Parts: sequence; structure tokens; C-alpha cells
Amino acid sequence: SSSMIEKERPESQRPLTFLRESDDELSSISDSNSTPSSSVRARFEKMIREAQDSVCLAIEAVDGGGKFKEDVWSRPGGGGGISRVLQDGDIWEKAGVNVSVVYGVMPPEAYRAAKPANSSDVKPGPVPFFAAGISSVLHPKNPFAPTLHFNYRYFETDAPSDAPGAPRQWWFGGGTDLTPAYIFEEDVKHFHSVQKSSCDKFDPSFYPRFKKWCDDYFYIKHRGERRGLGGIFFDDLNDYDQEMLLSFATECANSVVPAYIPIIERRKDTPFTDQHKAWQQLRRGRYVEFNLVYDRGTTFGLKTGGRIESILVSLPLSARWEYDHKPEEGSEEWKLLDACINPKEWV
Amino acid sequence: SSSMIEKERPESQRPLTFLRESDDELSSISDSNSTPSSSVRARFEKMIREAQDSVCLAIEAVDGGGKFKEDVWSRPGGGGGISRVLQDGDIWEKAGVNVSVVYGVMPPEAYRAAKPANSSDVKPGPVPFFAAGISSVLHPKNPFAPTLHFNYRYFETDAPSDAPGAPRQWWFGGGTDLTPAYIFEEDVKHFHSVQKSSCDKFDPSFYPRFKKWCDDYFYIKHRGERRGLGGIFFDDLNDYDQEMLLSFATECANSVVPAYIPIIERRKDTPFTDQHKAWQQLRRGRYVEFNLVYDRGTTFGLKTGGRIESILVSLPLSARWEYDHKPEEGSEEWKLLDACINPKEWV
Repeated sequence: SSSMIEKERPESQRPLTFLRESDDELSSISDSNSTPSSSVRARFEKMIREAQDSVCLAIEAVDGGGKFKEDVWSRPGGGGGISRVLQDGDIWEKAGVNVSVVYGVMPPEAYRAAKPANSSDVKPGPVPFFAAGISSVLHPKNPFAPTLHFNYRYFETDAPSDAPGAPRQWWFGGGTDLTPAYIFEEDVKHFHSVQKSSCDKFDPSFYPRFKKWCDDYFYIKHRGERRGLGGIFFDDLNDYDQEMLLSFATECANSVVPAYIPIIERRKDTPFTDQHKAWQQLRRGRYVEFNLVYDRGTTFGLKTGGRIESILVSLPLSARWEYDHKPEEGSEEWKLLDACINPKEWV
Repeated sequence: SSSMIEKERPESQRPLTFLRESDDELSSISDSNSTPSSSVRARFEKMIREAQDSVCLAIEAVDGGGKFKEDVWSRPGGGGGISRVLQDGDIWEKAGVNVSVVYGVMPPEAYRAAKPANSSDVKPGPVPFFAAGISSVLHPKNPFAPTLHFNYRYFETDAPSDAPGAPRQWWFGGGTDLTPAYIFEEDVKHFHSVQKSSCDKFDPSFYPRFKKWCDDYFYIKHRGERRGLGGIFFDDLNDYDQEMLLSFATECANSVVPAYIPIIERRKDTPFTDQHKAWQQLRRGRYVEFNLVYDRGTTFGLKTGGRIESILVSLPLSARWEYDHKPEEGSEEWKLLDACINPKEWV
């Protein structure tokens, strides 16, 4: 299946756009009243590249010591990406912020994994597609400073070459979620409040719905527990106005820094013991289990032969598995585990 | 799917057998000329329990400091297991040796994963089965001392209740493989020689065939590399005499100690640097990737709701993921990686 998608090659500099020329000419396929000046593809790419810049700037400013290393890559037939990784900084042990714009042909098997779950339009045979997204995982060193993950993506199937004006499938997906090893109510409430504010600007049903979706999605079935304390998550979203969803994804991406950085500022220098660190490492093990066994983006990437280092940058620098570890009832570790087993309402 | 198999419960002591009473009355379904005194199920259980004892004894003797902690569990409807884990010993950071004897009903989906790949006898609907096996992963602390994995298992589908004498599906599977972070030719040759000797006692085609099968099986497709330096592996083996295969599995299990312990004796006290340790941790990361994404036993266990701590005891105590790590060409780390990418003949 690695032959289905062309092999990436390194580039020495960032292109202005990863879009194919034909995409620049596309008018928006939106049915809204707005008259956007360029396609949703183009505006989504611009949005995720700006979000990458602003998140990386904020991370470097707080970290002080670490700098992002950038890898630009492209594919011969169009598309590519920018991977930025800060490793072994002062505050973060591993921080990855990637954007990618990918053209590909999905094997029917992968299409089943990626299509809207309730779509009745199941096409047999390979399906040409466009996918753009920003994906980031930020793992701090201090066990009291939480891991953050966010990911916003836009997906379109291509129109058949003999009918360029035919309707396409499109959908948005994404979310932002927080994975601490220890609970500070103040932090979790702040984080969820920012997510709720972003949602409420668009639809009052969004936060409760996407909060629950997040709790359901980041479920480690074989453990009976969630990876962390959630946030928001949505996928295959195409039953709202397309321009509205583009604005919503933009709002969510822009809220990453205000949702996360204040928490890091508060916790980054908290003194900790070897026991605190070991518990953080055990929770990182759960992070690895979720990502390799269940995460849709990761398993889709592994199947379709995406750039492996970009896909697996989400894995922590280090993780730990102890046999049959059970935190003492009532301990801080137990409280975190309990909240991963029984999701709470934080706002 | 966790409701498909009854929940395990802890037991305070080891039973003489995990077999259901009805299994004790079974005559062997072997068509060989031997007249075994008890069923293949019963003799396979006895073999794996003896192998568990002898491997654990050998490990404790070499380790000096660590002792195995034992957990016995059973299921209300019959079956159970013995998990033994030595954690944070002097020589091994995590050593797990588990036996299990399981009765269950496979969902059709799991049956597809477990049945012989070329079997034409695909039954729709739930399939009652018996599975017994020994499974072990031994992760030493010293980066020059290799990880060992072995697993031998016997599988039978039950006869339909209305036709107890009807033919059953049965098969053997297993293997022993070595995963060093650094290559010592002497070690790898010794290990493969022992595997070859075990195989050659039964069939001259076994070693070359099962050595290649091992190289093919432990392939991390998304990396284009193998987990380690192989050994032997076979699965769904039912096209030889059943008694012969029982003897072969016994021989393989008995050869674990002579294949592995001399290597540990030679390497356990070798001085090492932080760089050696970091490379070992990166290779442990690959171990995690293989086990969670590809390993048939692990993915089958996660799907069928087996005892999660027993299934995941194969994961190392700790592991590491660095972004885009590439060993320097010609270095010792590069040589190991090269041998994982291009499997070699060691004997």
C-alpha cells in the first residue's frame, strides 16, 4: 500500500502553497452567501500555516531554551508538509507541530476508515482525495504540566476527471484535548472554558456535543479508561454551512495558545519527585497505547504510507509500563485515573 | 466484545489443571500410532506449566536480586492462567512468563484473525474454542544484553455439542526470537544455532522455513524494518502429525534456557554509557510499535477482552521515541538497524 502514495522528498525551503495549480482556480464549493476570494482548500491551508507559526512562536517564547527544527517535504505529484519539532527544550521534552496538504488515492479499505461513519455513499475502488490538516502534540517535562494535543483538518474527495463540476464529499474534523498526569481543577476548568467559549460563538449545541464526542473518542477500550481529561472533538462534520465550519475550525485553532499556555506558565517550575515522574511516564504509556491502537489519524497514516516521522511525532519522548500498577485509593494518582474512567463536567 | 469472554477472577493458589472436567475424559484426537495417556490439551498444559517453572527458576538464579510475583486467575466457566512477572531485578528490568488455558467463544471477526490464513473452512457466527499457551518477554537492563521473546500455543475449536466425535480444527503456533540493541555475532550465532538444532531433530525443512517466517512476521511495515534479529516462528501448523508437533513445541520450549541464558551471562555486566542506554530505549520503542500495531497475540487479546495486564506484560518497562533519529552510517547502532532492515543468515 506504500506504493499508493508517492514517496515524500525533502525540500530546502517552504513553498508559498502546497496546492496544485488546478486548485488555485477552483471557486469555492460553498453554498453560503459569502463570496470568498479563494477556495476552501486554499483558505484552510493558509489558516493552518498561520496557526503553526503562532503556536510555535508561543512555545519557543515560554520554553526559553528549545528551538523548533523544521523539515519541509513535498510529493512529486503535489502536496507536502512542514514538520516542526522541538526536542529536549527547557520546558517541553517533545513538541511537534505539523501541517500537511496531501493529495492521494485511498485504497477502498482506508476510505472505509476515513469516510463519515454513517455515509451511505460507499464507493468501491480507489478514491482520489485532498486532505489538509494541522496536528500537534506537546509533551512537557514537568509531571504537573499537562500534555496538549490538537488537530484540525479538512477533507475533500476529488470530482471525477470527466465531471469537474460534480459535487464532492467534504468534511471537517478536529479537536483540542488536555492530558495531565495530575489534576489541578483550576487548569482543567480554564481549558474547558476556553473550548466552550470557542464553540458557543457558533452553536450552543457544539460544546456539549463535542465534549462528549471527545470523551468517547479518546477511549482506551482495553483499559476501560480515557487517555486524558478531554476537551472537544468532532469528525466528519459536513451538515453545517461550509463557511461556518471553516470559521469554527479557525477559531478553535486560534484558541490553542490562550487555552494552554497559561496552564504551562503556572506549572512548569513546580518541584516534583521521582514518584511524580514515574506516574507521568505511566500515563505516557497510555498515550502510546491509544495512539498506536485506536487513533484514527495514526492508524490511517500507518496504513496509507504517510511520512512516518511526522505521524509518530505524537508519541512521547519516553513512556513506561509497569505490571499491574494500581494507584492507592484516594491518592492524587487515583483521582486522575478516576477522572479518566468517569469523565466529569468541568464547566 | 468484553462480554464474549467471562471476566477473570484472582485465585489464591494454583490449581492442578485449568482444564474442564470434560476435557480430562477426551481421548487424544491424534491419528499417530502412539497411545498417549491423556489428551493433547492436557499434555500441552502440563508442558507449558513445566516450561514456565524452569524458565522462571533460571531467570531468578541469574538475576540474583529479583523474584517473580505470581498472579493466578481463573474464569467461572473454566480456564485460567498463571502470570509471573519479575520487575526491577538486578539484571532484568521486566521479565514476564505467562501461561494461560482459555475456553471462549470467538466473535467471527476474531476467528478470521486467528484461523489458518489459507483455511477454506470459514464458519460464520461465534466459534467455541480452546487455547493454551506460554508467552514470555524478558527485557534486561544492560543495553548489550538482548531481549528474548518466546511463545508456544495450542489451539482447538470445540466439536459441536450435538456431535462430540466430529473432527475439530487444531493447530500449533509459536517461536523464539532475539531482540538485541547491539550485535554480538557470537551471541546471535549461538542463539540461531540452538533454534536450528531444535528444528533439525524433527524436519530439515523446519529451520529455514521458520527462520524466514520469523523474519517476515516481526516486520514493522511502517518502518520497513524488523523488530529484532529473528529466530524461529510458525503458526497455524496442522499439516504434520499432531504428536510430532507436540514434541516439537516441547523441544522448542525446553531450548529457551540454553539458547538465551549463556548470552545474558556474557553481557549482563558490560559497562555502558547513556548513549548506549538511549539507543536501547529507542529500540524498545520499536518493540512497542510492533506489539501494539502488528502482533497477532496482542491484537487478538485486546479484541477478545483477555486479561489486559497479562497481554501487555510484553511491553518494556520503558521506551523512547526521538524525532527522525538516524544512526551514523557504519556505527554499531547503524549495524543493528541494517540487520533489522536486511535479515541475515546467522548459521
